[in-house]
Amino acid sequence: MKKFIIARTPKLVFAAGGITEVHNIVSQFGKTVLIITGGSSLEATGKWDEIVRILNHGDIVFYHTLLQGEPTPEFVDATTDRFREKDIDVVLSIGGGSVLDAGKAVSAMLTQEVSVTEFIEGIGAKIHDGRKRPFIAIPTTSGTGSEATKNAVLKRMGANGFKKSFRHDNFVPDIALIDPELTISCPAQVTAACGMDAFSHLLESYLSPRANPMTDALAYSGLGMLKDNLVPACTSGTDNVDVRAGMAYAAYLSGIVLANAGLGVIHGFASVIGGFFDIPHGVVCGALLCSATKKNVAALAEREPEGVGLEKYARLGALFSGKPYRAAEKAVLADTFTEIVYAWTDLLGIKRFGEYGVEGPDVDKIVEKTRSRDNPIELTKQEIREVFVERI
Amino acid sequence: MKKFIIARTPKLVFAAGGITEVHNIVSQFGKTVLIITGGSSLEATGKWDEIVRILNHGDIVFYHTLLQGEPTPEFVDATTDRFREKDIDVVLSIGGGSVLDAGKAVSAMLTQEVSVTEFIEGIGAKIHDGRKRPFIAIPTTSGTGSEATKNAVLKRMGANGFKKSFRHDNFVPDIALIDPELTISCPAQVTAACGMDAFSHLLESYLSPRANPMTDALAYSGLGMLKDNLVPACTSGTDNVDVRAGMAYAAYLSGIVLANAGLGVIHGFASVIGGFFDIPHGVVCGALLCSATKKNVAALAEREPEGVGLEKYARLGALFSGKPYRAAEKAVLADTFTEIVYAWTDLLGIKRFGEYGVEGPDVDKIVEKTRSRDNPIELTKQEIREVFVERI
Repeated sequence: MKKFIIARTPKLVFAAGGITEVHNIVSQFGKTVLIITGGSSLEATGKWDEIVRILNHGDIVFYHTLLQGEPTPEFVDATTDRFREKDIDVVLSIGGGSVLDAGKAVSAMLTQEVSVTEFIEGIGAKIHDGRKRPFIAIPTTSGTGSEATKNAVLKRMGANGFKKSFRHDNFVPDIALIDPELTISCPAQVTAACGMDAFSHLLESYLSPRANPMTDALAYSGLGMLKDNLVPACTSGTDNVDVRAGMAYAAYLSGIVLANAGLGVIHGFASVIGGFFDIPHGVVCGALLCSATKKNVAALAEREPEGVGLEKYARLGALFSGKPYRAAEKAVLADTFTEIVYAWTDLLGIKRFGEYGVEGPDVDKIVEKTRSRDNPIELTKQEIREVFVERI
Repeated sequence: MKKFIIARTPKLVFAAGGITEVHNIVSQFGKTVLIITGGSSLEATGKWDEIVRILNHGDIVFYHTLLQGEPTPEFVDATTDRFREKDIDVVLSIGGGSVLDAGKAVSAMLTQEVSVTEFIEGIGAKIHDGRKRPFIAIPTTSGTGSEATKNAVLKRMGANGFKKSFRHDNFVPDIALIDPELTISCPAQVTAACGMDAFSHLLESYLSPRANPMTDALAYSGLGMLKDNLVPACTSGTDNVDVRAGMAYAAYLSGIVLANAGLGVIHGFASVIGGFFDIPHGVVCGALLCSATKKNVAALAEREPEGVGLEKYARLGALFSGKPYRAAEKAVLADTFTEIVYAWTDLLGIKRFGEYGVEGPDVDKIVEKTRSRDNPIELTKQEIREVFVERI
C-alpha cells in the first residue's frame, strides 16, 4: 500500500429535518454566532424564518450577512473587519459551495489582522497559523462538497483575476450539518449542474493515480448513491427527500475524496476556464464529463489496457448498468459507462460552452493552460484539445 | 436514509516507515511532548532508539512514561499529576490499544483538576468540557482501532471493578500515524487476537441496525482487506509489510465504524466477560466470532429471511469465498461465511474460554448480564447462552 494521507473530517450530522438541531449545535461553541447566507432563496422557502425562530430560543445572539455570487477576498476582508470586535464564538454558513467557502474563510480570518490575500496560494506569501473560530457548514446544494474540505476557493475577476485556494488542515468545518430537505427548493438546472460537479469529483478521485483504498471505498459508495439519485433529483424526484438525501450524501463524500485523492483533466479545465469566463463551475464539469470520459477510456484501452484505470471504468460501467463485472469484458463495460454519461448529459440538459460565448479562438489559450493533473492517464495536448472542442 | 452521525476522524498519515515523520508531526503542536509506551517490546525491536534519535533533532523536549497492562484510573491520575506542571504541548502514544487509550485519557485530563473517575460513564457524574492537549496516536498492533475513536476504556479490577468508557467528541486523536512496520514484531498469537478484534468490529458494525451507507462502505472495505491479510499476518506473511499494512488499514477502519454504527452480541459478551476475567479482549471476541455468526445467521434465516441482515452475511460469504453474490443463494452464501469464520478460528489457534478457567457455573452470571446491543437480530436468552457455551 502506498503512503496516503486523509485529512480530518468534520463531525457529520446527516438528517432530514436536521436544521431543527441548529440551536443545540451552535450552543456547543458559545452564544455569539455569525451567520452567512447567499441571496434570497432561503428566505423565499420560509426556511430562513424557521432558522431564526429556532435560534431565538435562549440566549444566542446572531449576526447575519449575505454573500452575493462567489466569494472574493474583498468580501472576506470586509466581513472580517466588520465582525472582528464582536467576539464571534462560531461562524455558520447556510448555502451553496460559495457560501460555505466564504464562511470557512471568514472563520479563519477573524483571528488575523491582515488581508486574506496574503494567505491565498499562489498570490500571497504568508502561511496561516491555523487559528480560527469554530465553523459549522450547512449545505443547501449537493455539489462542491465544501462542507467536508479544508479549502476555500476565492475569486477575483478582471485582468489580474484569479480563482485560488485558501487552505489549512484546521479549516475543515467542525460540524457539517446536512439536511437534505434544504436542497428540495433547488431548481432542476442548478441541481443538475451541482450534481455533475459532485459526479466529476467522485469519478476523478476514484480514477486518480493518488487514490487509496479508503478514498476508493468512499468514492464508490458515493457513485452508487449518485447513480440512483442524480437523474431523479432533476426530474421526477425533485421533492423526494430520499432522492435529495442520496445526492447530499454523494456530494459530501465527493468533498472527502477530492481533497485526499486529487482530480483529473476535467478540473484541470475547470480551473482555467473559471479564470476566463463566468460559467458556473458545475456546468463546466458537467459539460466535460462525457468527452473526458470518452477520451480517457480510449487512451487507456489503447495504451494501458491492463492497467487499473480501465478496470475502474469497467467497474463503473457494471455499477451504472447493473451488469456483473467481468474482467474479460473490461473494454465493453468501460464503453458502457461512457455511453451512460453521454445519455445523462443530454437528459439533464447540460449546456455547451458556446452558450456562454466561448468560441473557436478561445480554444488555444484554454488548452494551452490546461493540465491533466491526477488524471488516470497522461493525455496529449491534442487529446486535451479534443475533449474541449467537442463540447463547444 | 435514516439519520446518522459520523464523529470527526483524525488526520490520518498512513505510511510504511512513517515513524520517521514523528519529529515533523510533533513539531506542529509545540516543543514539549509526553510519550506513553507499553512495556518493553518497542525497546526490544530497536524502534524506541530510532524514535529517540528522531526526536532528539532540534529543540523538542520529551518525557516518557510506561504503561503496564491495561490503563486504570489510577494510572491516568498519577500520570496527569506528574506532568500537569510541565507545560505539555502534545501527548503521543506508541503502542497497542491500551497505550493509545491511556494517552487519550491523559491528554484530556492534563486540563482538569479532578480524578478521571469523575468523568467515567456509569461511574462519575461530571461531564468533561472537551478541553485537552493535542494527542497523536501511533498504533503498534492492528486491533482496537482506538487511533480512530473518541473513547478510552479504563479498567479497575476487583470486587468493585469496572471496564468503562471515558469519552468526548474532542478526544478523537488529532493525528493517527499508522506505520505498519511497527506491527511486524507483534507475535503471531497477539496478531491473531488483535486481528479477530478488528474483524469483530468490522463485522458487527457492518451488520448493525444502526449502520449507514458510509459505515457500510468503510466496513466492507476493511473486511475486504482483512480477508486477504489476517491469516497471512499470523502465518506466512508475518514480516511482509503489505500484509501488515492491510491489517493496519482494516483495524483503523474498524475503529471508525464501531464508533459510529455500534456493535452486536460479541461485544455484549466482551464487556461482561472483561469485568469478570482477565482474558485479552481480542481473545474473547475471537472465541465468539464463529458461534455468534452461526447463531445470527440461523436466527435471521428462520425469522427474517428477507431482511438486510441475511443479505449482508451472504454478501460477506461472496466476498470471503470469491463467489459472485446471488440473491437466490443468500442462505447458502451466509452459511459459507460461517464456515470460513470457523475455519479461521481453528487456523489461528484462537483459545476457548476453558483455557482461562471459565467453567460451567460461570455461564449463568455471564449470560444473564449480556445484551444483544446493536446485533442484526434480537437473540433470545437461550440463543445467547448457546453462543457462549459452545466456546467454553
